[in-house]
Amino acid sequence: MNGSDKAVPQRIGVLGGGQLARMMALAGLPLGFSFDFLDPAGDACAGVAGALTQADFDDLTAMQGFARHIDVATFDFENVPASSALELAGQLPFYPPVKALESCQDRLVEKQLMRQLDIAVPPFHAVNSRTDLLAAVEELGLPCVLKTRRLGYDGKGQAILRQPEDLERAWQRLGDAALIVEAFVPFEAECSLLAVRGQDGETRYWPLVRNLHHDGVLMLSRPGTFAPALQASAEQLAQRLLQHFDYVGVMTIEFFLREGQLSVNEIAPRVHNSGHWTLDGAETSQFENHLRAISGLPLGSTAMSRPSLMFNWLGELPDRARVLALPGVRWHEYGKAPRPGRKLGHATVVAADTAELEQRAGELARQLGGAWDGWLSRL
Amino acid sequence: MNGSDKAVPQRIGVLGGGQLARMMALAGLPLGFSFDFLDPAGDACAGVAGALTQADFDDLTAMQGFARHIDVATFDFENVPASSALELAGQLPFYPPVKALESCQDRLVEKQLMRQLDIAVPPFHAVNSRTDLLAAVEELGLPCVLKTRRLGYDGKGQAILRQPEDLERAWQRLGDAALIVEAFVPFEAECSLLAVRGQDGETRYWPLVRNLHHDGVLMLSRPGTFAPALQASAEQLAQRLLQHFDYVGVMTIEFFLREGQLSVNEIAPRVHNSGHWTLDGAETSQFENHLRAISGLPLGSTAMSRPSLMFNWLGELPDRARVLALPGVRWHEYGKAPRPGRKLGHATVVAADTAELEQRAGELARQLGGAWDGWLSRL
Repeated sequence: MNGSDKAVPQRIGVLGGGQLARMMALAGLPLGFSFDFLDPAGDACAGVAGALTQADFDDLTAMQGFARHIDVATFDFENVPASSALELAGQLPFYPPVKALESCQDRLVEKQLMRQLDIAVPPFHAVNSRTDLLAAVEELGLPCVLKTRRLGYDGKGQAILRQPEDLERAWQRLGDAALIVEAFVPFEAECSLLAVRGQDGETRYWPLVRNLHHDGVLMLSRPGTFAPALQASAEQLAQRLLQHFDYVGVMTIEFFLREGQLSVNEIAPRVHNSGHWTLDGAETSQFENHLRAISGLPLGSTAMSRPSLMFNWLGELPDRARVLALPGVRWHEYGKAPRPGRKLGHATVVAADTAELEQRAGELARQLGGAWDGWLSRL
Repeated sequence: MNGSDKAVPQRIGVLGGGQLARMMALAGLPLGFSFDFLDPAGDACAGVAGALTQADFDDLTAMQGFARHIDVATFDFENVPASSALELAGQLPFYPPVKALESCQDRLVEKQLMRQLDIAVPPFHAVNSRTDLLAAVEELGLPCVLKTRRLGYDGKGQAILRQPEDLERAWQRLGDAALIVEAFVPFEAECSLLAVRGQDGETRYWPLVRNLHHDGVLMLSRPGTFAPALQASAEQLAQRLLQHFDYVGVMTIEFFLREGQLSVNEIAPRVHNSGHWTLDGAETSQFENHLRAISGLPLGSTAMSRPSLMFNWLGELPDRARVLALPGVRWHEYGKAPRPGRKLGHATVVAADTAELEQRAGELARQLGGAWDGWLSRL
């Protein structure tokens, strides 16, 4: 069993050099990969673990140069221009596929695809004018949510319309962009499914993750609390999407759960914040399996190795020494400068069983103070 | 609980840029540290995860420059000249302490210290001449082992003397160096204890590891197979050494086990190959706890999180895709060019219980072929 697998790509190129790219590299260096990142920011935090090309994402000349140094290309966020993705995909393997990237860049296209694949989504309407908005709200009723079709993330580019006078304000703020309005889902829980599909079509799913958002941003994630039937149902929906795209890599689907039924909130064609627990609580992390998939290596097990629960650090890091003094806390800092609302790191609480997990997570929430106790109780 | 721990050093300087430094950095980047390495080799494999200064270890001017970029210094191998260590230690925190480094650089000094601390070592004699050698062999009997006092590792700088005619050959090969001759220990097992001690004196021990060497080089390591009484006995010996040195960081003690008694083979004042399983099988890895200790953060739990067993990759890597197709295998490549006998990587087999571990390790050994099955059966 000697000789090395020369056919397996060794140099991974990542469009985007944020924390997802950084964690991909930290997972991939031990697997034998090297990393090149392309990012407009010269201090992109992934740069510590590979070569960083500073360039805009729509710089096709930079893409051509980038392609010469790598064996396979991927991305760490979904707003890479399709033109750049196509430029790279014309020269080397590019995963996940460009058509998945494109579909997920536009909320309208994404939701139309769901309908076509018979996957439940909240009622929605395209909005290209004030008149469209009035008509859509008339039909969907209040409250509902006005969103830009493109470039939204972490609750950005969104406005909740609760009463008639909210419409004009939201229109003033967002009306310059192509929009979509969606019915507001009074969900009982938010959850996400992470899936990974290999080049041979082999597909694996991590356990559904229960998520708690605050102001549109993820604060807490906990895997493994849903019944097997719901897991099966989520996997069925994911399977349709993965096959439709002939997908390769990790895909994340965010769901609303209401009265036992799942409807899709949005899809991310990439590793995802709600999958960070897999670094400490799964047999194989989302980052490792993404790399295995795009490089043609066999996929690793997606089973939980132990109960875990993720806390997200936004804007400012808590005191590291105090957090690390607690048992079962794994600390993940991204090396980014603090800025209000910015994702700076996360921690995963791990434990031998559910009772210990809840005790440990409760202890951390109390140490952190602020709103953490309340968020944890709502998870 | 806001505000960051500004007093904790953020920039770690490592003398040596090999795989131990590399794994230290991969464990330390998520903790928020950045890394600088100093190594004579411009392609030292740790360089991918931090800044690399190419300089000889005895270059005091380079040491002074290096000191300006870091908050705390450590090392990834024990043959750093004491003069360089002292230069750094005069300017900033340097851990483990220079006196521990110095003692472990000389087998004679190391063994004399053990005697002084009432720690069992195999009988030994200093050898500075042919006459010394003859007298020592006369007293210790054959077989015995002739070793250089300095710069030996992985069985290098050693000769086993089995019959009288071996003496002259060994003397011709090694006689230029200061030597020590040690009684040969017909051990039943080799094992190692990894300990970590914080700046406040808090000390933790990982479970004893059973090791299998071939030609003086570690091939297999398995933690958690020894009785609690032996663990307690090893910890007692370690405690004496740690206190003697006022040690900070990870220390490794390699033991021979014979008739239920431990005697010390050698001490490494650093993270160690026989502790690589901690990356996948312990609550906190040796690398993370070393960094926590030298930076003044609280230590993490050293408990086993699950049964594990490490395979070392020497000279050539096995086929990665075939190894990764097996369940429960974690792959760690060091990014070094293949060369006969060179340590290129390792894999850890993990499992839910002992039976599954043995089944999985057996499967991997069969896949690898060669002598692996035999080594595994002797572990």
